[in-house]
Order: sequence, then structure tokens, then C-alpha cells
Amino acid sequence: MAERIAVIGAGPSGLAILRAFESARRKGAEIPEIVCYERQSDYGGLWNYTWRTGIDQHGEPVHGSMYRYLWSNGPKECLEFADYSFEEHFGRPIPSYPPRAVLHDYIKGRIEKSGITHYIKLNHAVRWVSEDENTGKFTVAVKDLTTDELSKEEFDYVVVACGHYSTPITPEFPGLSKFLGRTMHSHDFRSADEFAGKDVLCIGSSYSSEDIGIQCYKYGAKSVTFSWRTKPMGFKWPDTLDERELLVKVEGKTCFFKDGSKKDFDVIVLCTGYSNHFPFMDDNLRLKSRNRLYPPNLYKGVFWLNNPKVLYIGMQDQYYTFNMFDAEAWYARDVILGKIKLPSYGEMAEDAANWLAKEEEVKDAFEAIDFQTEFVRDLLAPTDYPRLDVDKVAEMFKEWEHHKMENILTYRDKSYRSVLTGTMAPVHHTPWLEALDDSLEAFLDQPKTQQAAE
Amino acid sequence: MAERIAVIGAGPSGLAILRAFESARRKGAEIPEIVCYERQSDYGGLWNYTWRTGIDQHGEPVHGSMYRYLWSNGPKECLEFADYSFEEHFGRPIPSYPPRAVLHDYIKGRIEKSGITHYIKLNHAVRWVSEDENTGKFTVAVKDLTTDELSKEEFDYVVVACGHYSTPITPEFPGLSKFLGRTMHSHDFRSADEFAGKDVLCIGSSYSSEDIGIQCYKYGAKSVTFSWRTKPMGFKWPDTLDERELLVKVEGKTCFFKDGSKKDFDVIVLCTGYSNHFPFMDDNLRLKSRNRLYPPNLYKGVFWLNNPKVLYIGMQDQYYTFNMFDAEAWYARDVILGKIKLPSYGEMAEDAANWLAKEEEVKDAFEAIDFQTEFVRDLLAPTDYPRLDVDKVAEMFKEWEHHKMENILTYRDKSYRSVLTGTMAPVHHTPWLEALDDSLEAFLDQPKTQQAAE
Repeated sequence: MAERIAVIGAGPSGLAILRAFESARRKGAEIPEIVCYERQSDYGGLWNYTWRTGIDQHGEPVHGSMYRYLWSNGPKECLEFADYSFEEHFGRPIPSYPPRAVLHDYIKGRIEKSGITHYIKLNHAVRWVSEDENTGKFTVAVKDLTTDELSKEEFDYVVVACGHYSTPITPEFPGLSKFLGRTMHSHDFRSADEFAGKDVLCIGSSYSSEDIGIQCYKYGAKSVTFSWRTKPMGFKWPDTLDERELLVKVEGKTCFFKDGSKKDFDVIVLCTGYSNHFPFMDDNLRLKSRNRLYPPNLYKGVFWLNNPKVLYIGMQDQYYTFNMFDAEAWYARDVILGKIKLPSYGEMAEDAANWLAKEEEVKDAFEAIDFQTEFVRDLLAPTDYPRLDVDKVAEMFKEWEHHKMENILTYRDKSYRSVLTGTMAPVHHTPWLEALDDSLEAFLDQPKTQQAAE
Repeated sequence: MAERIAVIGAGPSGLAILRAFESARRKGAEIPEIVCYERQSDYGGLWNYTWRTGIDQHGEPVHGSMYRYLWSNGPKECLEFADYSFEEHFGRPIPSYPPRAVLHDYIKGRIEKSGITHYIKLNHAVRWVSEDENTGKFTVAVKDLTTDELSKEEFDYVVVACGHYSTPITPEFPGLSKFLGRTMHSHDFRSADEFAGKDVLCIGSSYSSEDIGIQCYKYGAKSVTFSWRTKPMGFKWPDTLDERELLVKVEGKTCFFKDGSKKDFDVIVLCTGYSNHFPFMDDNLRLKSRNRLYPPNLYKGVFWLNNPKVLYIGMQDQYYTFNMFDAEAWYARDVILGKIKLPSYGEMAEDAANWLAKEEEVKDAFEAIDFQTEFVRDLLAPTDYPRLDVDKVAEMFKEWEHHKMENILTYRDKSYRSVLTGTMAPVHHTPWLEALDDSLEAFLDQPKTQQAAE
């Protein structure tokens, strides 16, 4: 009987696995039977948008942390699939920072073109994965959310590709339970319109905080304060935005900060990150890590050391995204197909330990970009993934960091050159700060004159 | 080896089971070993309050639907434990409609007095319950949320007492995903303060809608509109509150109703109820029911017909609450202790079918009260639960319905007589509409003169 692979999740990481195997199949390889379980009613993972927060229509935790008006926070040229350029998908060059709907369309385009949707079972939530010690196979218990029925199937491999930006970390602060305003995690942030005229406090100093803060500014918040624990973001903020040390307590609507200052707020948004949360994995198969560039116990960042037939895709903290998931998926595929042989446990453990030690020496964003560039390069080398010039991608990431430091409100107006097509992206018809409509139609409706400007 | 019972949940229903067994033990009975698993960090179930919404600090769905400023929406005399009066707990009579903290204190008082907290494992989430067909025993997989470790234990009985008002039902409406305001389920409603000055739309016409609407009115909402599907609540609303037919679509901030009217809103609260959701129960043991007075497939409303060693406590739609859970718990205990023998499967199925047929004939709230009164009476008859005059309780429920129809804003100012102590409750020092502080201290701080007024 053919080997069977369970893929958990049909977002960018799970789709990368499907695409990798389909690519081999089309080149004549015999591939295992693949079943991809997706809890949501559509594929695309985080790139699906829903108004729902908390618990969804099936009683499941809402997967998505997606909000309206989200635009890519990095140049699309840094995440472009090497086997499917933006230019191929849209039939012409488009600007470097697309809004959600445009990226979602791009992701779906590759999948539809590949004809791989038949691998995906939508509305199926994986409840439990365990290993049978006698057979070495995995039992996967899955709930069909539509029929409300549970079934169990056996697999030879399990690929966990459900993402790790879904389960919020929600710290406690003294007095928060009696705050006379709204308290929420960034996971539940949906629409910046709601915060027009409000004083908003964003706790945290990473991407969620930064972007939700400037979203709120863009859509008319009265003020936004960012509160940091380790260090401030240090961008040049407009007048109504500021950064303060960590929140220490709340009284009524008043928030008190470590620097001794205080201010009244209408809403506190906990932009405090996400935890690795794989409650469906048996303890001996379950990745436990904070959000980091090199999670422990994964050979090549993918293979669960204690049982490499369990694979994790996309579990890294991310500069690289779609193309890194592809790199992991192509490598994983070649291991499963026997084209790449895994070394001994000892060698794998040593290799992972070396990477982890290197990761711990990373001192800043630029070194982190270099680290992840090497990580991707290492994965790509032995595979047939189309050539991806990671050195040029790394350069773009660094340029992007400089653009952000120059002006956090205008960095999305910059253009980058595709490493695949060599085309420089056109300037968008409207500066990001003034582009209030984030629909695909509004974005693609490029006036002819401006398309030519490039 | 002694028999073992797993109790899932340490809210009013789970605590009733613990109390029932402890009561037998103190009278000299030998009782099984009991382990009560509670996901939250404290017992008390829904009566715990948290500012959290959606997902909690352990990555688990937030259990509670509790909000600040919730006061009992029925007279406390209708839910009084027959073995522990309010007067015993507080040392004196208190008014009939206590706020959350006061009821929580009362629940905890009985537990502390009984010395039964040692049965409870806090921060333990039951992940999976299945039956071993060979042994007839149940394997219960439990996650210790503090250590993040899973363990499995065997039990002879499983009592599901986790409540059924935790998993929101969230219907879709055309345009809702682009509503330019806040969308939330009543499960995530926390503090009416947030809605001062707002135009609030509550979808639904049951208790959540009614109470959240008048809470918002009390704390300064600009207007509240209730939207009904089946029939309006029909209370005499103050000027800024009104009822309309069902929402049909949303455009921007404007909501359009089936009656042809439209209005702009800042927030839409889906007061659309809760689903029975027991994802940790294997399919063959899992109750599936809408919220109703007599869920199907439960003998005496408690014993899972196909395997009566699985028991469900408190799964009914509720007029009676704490004392009904006690009635179920005492009966369940006596079956487990062998004092009451369960009849044959055929007889149990017929009995349940008869009750269900009677329930389906219930035409209005008054008949529903009578139905549940008979249900409780039937359970209590063979047990040693202290005498509870359910006829008098039923009368109070009907009086309460009349008080609500008279004036939805003042019904909580009425007083009732305890069927246990015979004492008439004192009038509260402040009318509910003016009592903005819902703390235990503020409530119990009865001016001496008013205490005597009664």
C-alpha cells in the first residue's frame, strides 16, 4: 500500500508541501497519498479574513489574526514564490506592498494553477495525533466540522503546518480586570475604523504593535501609545504616537507606566505575541518553543528529532515567509521520497545544536536576516526548487529595515526589483497613508500614466 | 480497588456532585475515589470573572461568559441550596437579587464549609474521554495546564459538568464582515462602561440580550436596539430602547431590519446563545442537543442512555439552577452508590421519550416553569436532599415573570421569601438602576435603618 501523509493546515506552509509533491508528481515521481486537513472553510491560512473573534461558527478557536486594512509589512519581492512570480499571476508588474486581498489572490492563484485543491479537506479539525509504538504509524483523529463526526486514519508521516501566530499570549497587569475600557489581544483586532477618535494603548514592541498602531493612526485614532518591555521600536513617530516603558498598573481608564508617566486610554491592545500551541499533538511529538529563528529539536528546522516522520513546516520566527516554507517543503518532500537521506540521530542532533548556537549569537535584525538567509540557502541547495537568489533577497530585507527607520509611515511606498523577473515594481497610485480602500480592485486599478512612471 | 469517578468541571454542577458524595461520606457511606478536573484557575465555573476574552493564558478557549455588573436575573430564593441557606452563609438576610461577587461568595462558602476542595484539580483541561470496550472503563486524557503535560487515567464513571453556556453560536449576516464598528458575541461582553454614549444593537431575544441591553442602558449607552427572529421580548422599554425584527444586512455602520427600518450602530452584540460543545467526549458518549429543558438521550436528564456510567449534570435549559444541579447530583450519587437501581435500557429510553414528549408540548414560560418543577421534584423524591418546597419555588418563578413584565428596570428591586428559612428578603439599600458599584462590599453594606425596614 502507498505511504500516506497527513498535512495539518492549508495555509502557506501546508500548501507549500502540497505544491512540492505535486511538482515531483508532474515530473514523473511516484508520490505518497496526501490528505491535508484544514480547520477553516477555505485554504489560505492566516490570509483568510473573518469578522469573527474568539470562537468560530463550529466552536473552534478562531484561527486567524488577520485584520482589515492589513497590507504586507515587507516587500512582496522578499516572499515571492520562485515557481510562480507575481507578474505571472497578475499579468503585469504590481507595487511592492500589496494589501491582504491581493496576496491572498496570489497564494490561491498558484494553488489553482497547480490543481492541488483535491488534496485538501476543508472544515476538518485535527483533534489528536499519536504514534503507534508497534507499527510506527500515526493515528490521526479528525473532526469533520460540518457533520460533527470524528474519524481516525493511519498515516506514515505527519506534517504540522498550522502556523504559530494563532494562539495569543495574554499577560496580566495589575488593575487590568477593572479597566474601564476595552481590553483585547491583537489576535482579535479586526478593523481600525473602530478606534477612530480613541486613545489606544498597544502593549508590545514587535510587528503587531507597530502595524496596529500605525493602522489606528491612519484611520483616525486620537492617539496611540506603544508600551515596551525590552526596548522601544525607536521609529520617528508622528505627533500623536509615542512610546513608553512597560505598563505597570491600571486604575479606571488611567494607565501608569514604568517611567512614572500616566495617561487615560479607551482601549488596551495586547500586542504580546503568540505561543506555539499544538494541543492535538501527543506530548512526545509536540514542538515546544518560543517564537525564534531556530526552534529546538528540529533537524533542518523541519524534522522532529525524536521521530523525523513528524515534520514541522514554517515554525520559525520569520523574515522569509512563503519562499522559506517552500524551501522547507521541497527539502521535506525529497527526504520523504528518499532522494535525500537523513543522517543518524546523533548527526542530526549535533547539526541542530550548531544552528541553535549560531542563532543565539544573533545580535540584531541584520544578523537575523543573514542567519535566516543561510538557513534557507542550506535547505534549497540539494533540491530542484527554481533558483532563488537569496543574497539579493537578504539585501532587500536590509533595505526594508532602513526604509522603516527612515519613515515608518512611508516605507510601504517604496519599490523593489523582483529577483525572478528582474522587473522593478511600479510605484502605487496612492501613498499607503492615503489608500484607505484595501480591496483588490482598488489596488489593481492602476492609472495607465502611473503604471508607465516606472 | 475502589471505583473511581472523573468529574469534569468545578462550577455549580461539578461542585454539586462533590457535595453530594461528601454528604454521603459524612453520614458513613463508603464513596468512590473522585477526581474533579477544572480548566480554570479557580472553582466556581461561570461565576468566576475574567477580563480575558477568546483564548486564555493557557491557549484554551475562555470558559466564562461572565460580565462585570452582572446581578442575578432571578430571585436568589429560587436557586438557594437546600443544605446551605443564604442566611447561614451571610449571617443575616440579604436582598433577593445579589450581584455576581455575592453569589460567587455564597457558592464558595458551601464548598469551603464542606471541606471538599481537595477533590479538585485546578488548571487541568480534559482533552479526551473514551471507553475501553473490553473493560468498560473510561480513559480520561488530561492536560495539566501549568506543567503543559498530558496524562491518562482510568475511571469507572465520568460526570460531565462543564456547563453549556460557554461556546458561542455566531450566525452570519450579509455585510457583517465589513461593518464599520465592533462585532462581538455576548460571550465576550465584559463591561458595560465601554458602551457609554454608543448605539448598541443586541441580536437575540433571550436572557443575554435582555440583560446586556439593560446593562448598557444603566451605564449610559446612547441607545439599545434588540433584534428578534421569533418574537420580541415585549417589555416596556424606556425611550432609548426598542425592539425590531431580525437584522437582514449591514452596510457601513447602517443596519437594515426585516421590518424595513434602518439605523446606524457602533456595536453589534450577537446575543445568539450557546451550543452544546463537548469536544473532549468520544462521539459515542457525546451529548448533542440544542439548549432545551429536556435534552435527548439522557435518562432523568442525567444518565447517557447508551452508557449510563457517563453522566451529564446541569445540561438543561434553566429556570432552576443550583438546586436543580443538586437534585441531579444527589440522584446520580445514589445510583452510583447502588441505593437507586437504574431500570433496563428499554424502560429508561421510554421514560426519557415521555419527558421529551411532554417538554415539546410546553407552550410558554409558565408551563416551562411547571415542567422543570416536575423534573426537579421527580429527582428529589427518592433522595435524602433536604426538603425543598418546589411548589413555592415555582410560584416565585411565576411572580418573577410578572415583575419583569411590569417593569424590566425594577424587577430586581423586589423581595422574596426563602422557602428554607421563611425569611422575607430585605429591600436593597439602592434601586438596581442606581446601584453602579456591584462589589460584594457595596452590596452588603446595608444601612441599619433599611435592614429594619423589612
